[in-house]
Amino acid sequence: MNFNELKNEIIKTQSFLCVGLDPDWKKMPESMKKENSGAALFEFNRKIIDATAPYAVAFKPNLAFYECFGIPGLEAFRCTVKYLRKNYPNKLIIADAKRGDIGNTSKKYAQAFFEFYDVDALTVAPYMGEDSVAPFLEYEGKWVVLLTLTSNKGASDFQFIQNQSGYKLYEEVLAASLDWGCSGNMMYVVGATKAEELENIRQYVPSHFLLVPGVGAQGGSLQEVAKYGMTEDCGLLVNSSRGIIHASSGDDFAEAAKAAAAKLQQEMAELLKEKGLI
Amino acid sequence: MNFNELKNEIIKTQSFLCVGLDPDWKKMPESMKKENSGAALFEFNRKIIDATAPYAVAFKPNLAFYECFGIPGLEAFRCTVKYLRKNYPNKLIIADAKRGDIGNTSKKYAQAFFEFYDVDALTVAPYMGEDSVAPFLEYEGKWVVLLTLTSNKGASDFQFIQNQSGYKLYEEVLAASLDWGCSGNMMYVVGATKAEELENIRQYVPSHFLLVPGVGAQGGSLQEVAKYGMTEDCGLLVNSSRGIIHASSGDDFAEAAKAAAAKLQQEMAELLKEKGLI
Repeated sequence: MNFNELKNEIIKTQSFLCVGLDPDWKKMPESMKKENSGAALFEFNRKIIDATAPYAVAFKPNLAFYECFGIPGLEAFRCTVKYLRKNYPNKLIIADAKRGDIGNTSKKYAQAFFEFYDVDALTVAPYMGEDSVAPFLEYEGKWVVLLTLTSNKGASDFQFIQNQSGYKLYEEVLAASLDWGCSGNMMYVVGATKAEELENIRQYVPSHFLLVPGVGAQGGSLQEVAKYGMTEDCGLLVNSSRGIIHASSGDDFAEAAKAAAAKLQQEMAELLKEKGLI
Repeated sequence: MNFNELKNEIIKTQSFLCVGLDPDWKKMPESMKKENSGAALFEFNRKIIDATAPYAVAFKPNLAFYECFGIPGLEAFRCTVKYLRKNYPNKLIIADAKRGDIGNTSKKYAQAFFEFYDVDALTVAPYMGEDSVAPFLEYEGKWVVLLTLTSNKGASDFQFIQNQSGYKLYEEVLAASLDWGCSGNMMYVVGATKAEELENIRQYVPSHFLLVPGVGAQGGSLQEVAKYGMTEDCGLLVNSSRGIIHASSGDDFAEAAKAAAAKLQQEMAELLKEKGLI
């Protein structure tokens, strides 16, 4: 999926919502829990996808929530991607896996996610520098979503360290990465809990898409994110995981997810209108 | 496996060799390539393990080389870990996966690697800070191997950035991590290609184990690593991957791997003798 296709889907859906598919076994309804954990995860996801797809432009399964079930969990991830690809071909599929290694190894991760699983985008950690990111950028129509300023408390441990010219580490990551990719194959993870930094981030990447987690359970504000981060192409994918998929832990989880996604979509439509995008 | 058990295995084996199990399909002998890629990978690994175990204290499968085959690859990884655990219970098993995410997600990765696969140690990326690492440290007898100063070219993009007090990012990572874990549950990745930095690193972590990749194919020197990095407990695990497992791409790959591992073990025995450890 390319930049314009993503923008068109945002305009058509009147939404820049990304639904985080991070199913937590403890919060899944008892009736869904089968002996085969992989089958249960996939069935849960399928119902969430069908309920929320009218309100979302992207889906983001987080690999940890599948890997913790071992092989059956990864089979559920594979089936989820296949299901999305077949039934919702216009939705962006982001594997949130935060990979990154020396060049020859990142190349293998790229094969895993862009060939075997065939997702559209992958989150990548920047610590190991250019050659750990470059192999992911060699696939046409695929995206690197680079960790930049994350939504968690530990983000402050290193990401705000200032160098001797006064630039913060996350700014160094942004600046360096401009040589690696472009707005057509690179996005950035910027936590909604750091909305006040978005204005600064937009000075580095005025037109790139930002993937923004942290709205909802983690406390970020959608209005603040849009105020500081939205561009003429929207340029935002705002993720909500727990707030949607575990809005209810009962048998009405899909209806509750639908309602939560619809509520966010309505707020997003207002923000897109204010920006003159729809 | 705890610190003393690892040290004892080093003394017994007269080696601090870690064999990187990163099987590259293109370099595997034709006769090993079966239709079921997972079965082929496991059979290749099994022969490598049997051939090199007398000369090694640790095995380090890199997840990328399994994930690129999809589910069959992960099944090969699982079988490899099980085989090691059953037949070589005194060898340290390091999953080189470079994971790390917000706390609730790292917890799931910890479940995947320390419960489902049941490896002894996991490489973890530091970019997201303390709460992305902490969940891995809650398992007794398990280890975090934190990326610190990597062996690749891109290491210089961010890891050497100096803060306003003159400390480099990798030094900040070392200093911060001392509050997170101890020499009994934390190791550090330090590339052999950065041996001149080892003296400095030892000022932060005088007794921790360091996992040192980059000897061999990447150009690092074993003697330099030992000179600057070895402690009274050895404190080193030096990894070689391609130089051992793909020493030959013919049917004699296991014999060639054995010879390459034995050669490194002999060099390591000399270095351990010089230090008075054996």
